[in-house]
Amino acid sequence: MSSSSAAPAAKPPMRDALVAAAFQLFLERGYEQTTVDDIVALAGVGRRSFFRYFPSKEDVVFPDHERCLADMTAFLAAGAEEDEPVRRVCDAARLVLRMYAENPTFSVQRYRLTKKVPGLRAYELSVVWRYERALAGYLRGRFADRPGGTLRADVVAAAVVAAHNNALRSWLRSDGEDDAGAAVDHALGYVQAAFGHEAPEDPGAVHPRGEGAEDVVVLVARRDAPLWRVVREFETVLGRD
Amino acid sequence: MSSSSAAPAAKPPMRDALVAAAFQLFLERGYEQTTVDDIVALAGVGRRSFFRYFPSKEDVVFPDHERCLADMTAFLAAGAEEDEPVRRVCDAARLVLRMYAENPTFSVQRYRLTKKVPGLRAYELSVVWRYERALAGYLRGRFADRPGGTLRADVVAAAVVAAHNNALRSWLRSDGEDDAGAAVDHALGYVQAAFGHEAPEDPGAVHPRGEGAEDVVVLVARRDAPLWRVVREFETVLGRD
Repeated sequence: MSSSSAAPAAKPPMRDALVAAAFQLFLERGYEQTTVDDIVALAGVGRRSFFRYFPSKEDVVFPDHERCLADMTAFLAAGAEEDEPVRRVCDAARLVLRMYAENPTFSVQRYRLTKKVPGLRAYELSVVWRYERALAGYLRGRFADRPGGTLRADVVAAAVVAAHNNALRSWLRSDGEDDAGAAVDHALGYVQAAFGHEAPEDPGAVHPRGEGAEDVVVLVARRDAPLWRVVREFETVLGRD
Repeated sequence: MSSSSAAPAAKPPMRDALVAAAFQLFLERGYEQTTVDDIVALAGVGRRSFFRYFPSKEDVVFPDHERCLADMTAFLAAGAEEDEPVRRVCDAARLVLRMYAENPTFSVQRYRLTKKVPGLRAYELSVVWRYERALAGYLRGRFADRPGGTLRADVVAAAVVAAHNNALRSWLRSDGEDDAGAAVDHALGYVQAAFGHEAPEDPGAVHPRGEGAEDVVVLVARRDAPLWRVVREFETVLGRD
């Protein structure tokens, strides 16, 4: 490539070049056998450039989580009072899946790497924990004036993360071939069915629930309720009265 | 104490002596400022004795988790086919709480230490993850022949761990003064209410759900179901037909 070229070729940002160099070496030599010096030599930059972008070698393995955590936090903060809280955290979890699904090859490579290196597994647990705390923090705010609000917030956040990770791992094990969006919708739908509406507090309350919830009505009634009342509730829900 | 005493004083096992020495130093000097050499000097044993019991300095902070993980695995393995799976994992989680509650002073000291030292926090996350995998592994076995069984297993395990940890942290923040058993019963009761019974899988299926479930029936019906069919389902459930 000539340096006198009128239109210089688009150069990938240095950060991306470091990630690409790192993964090339991790795959060729193994993670443990690759040093930061090896990475910067291949990328053609100095050590200080590496550490400007990544605090440690582990961080280059997960280059997008900080941005994604920031996006998630902003998304939750931008929520409105009308948002159903469990739906909102499910949508926030979808942002993480999207980050993985945007780059299947990279995500699958990293998945294989992380499975092999215990230090990376520990790093990943700390990242997952930060996502979970972001979701729980939002829910604690939303459930603040409700008895048992922090318990509910913590349990729902953990359930959302577990469902997301179940779908993510299925997709990664398919080498990124399956439909990631469909898998996560199914998994999060399960959590929404369990937690997305109030547990029946007053007999006679009616909730859509479960998969394909829009096609289904769920009627909760006291066992000793008179039949006419159950029928009337059902008609009311369906707008048939 | 005389060495010629006829009945030698009961000596705490070396492992306990190492834990005691370690915590004395962690509290006096801080965790980072204490070396394994300091610990063995205070305990009056050699370095090799330390590493016989603990692979690293971090492990001496959590001396009982390996035993507790083994106890939990054995407890789950000893379960019968009749055990309701969600109840069983809740009971398994109670084993962990009991370990903490058996020694409130030690548990509260460790809690304060762990909050201050990021490396210990990471270690603790890896321990929590192992408990969660033990619970999920049991549930995956129990839900093996059910569609979505691994999803359900992973979500319930995460919910149980989150509920347990919510109760544990409340108790630790009370300096071990509150009733740990009552807190965890409340927290796990919430998870059992959400997951302890089958989710409706086919429209028309009827399940008790939630607290006071025995007094309540839940009817799931397609939105376009004819009314006569809904009424008949309801009557069937109640045994009124």
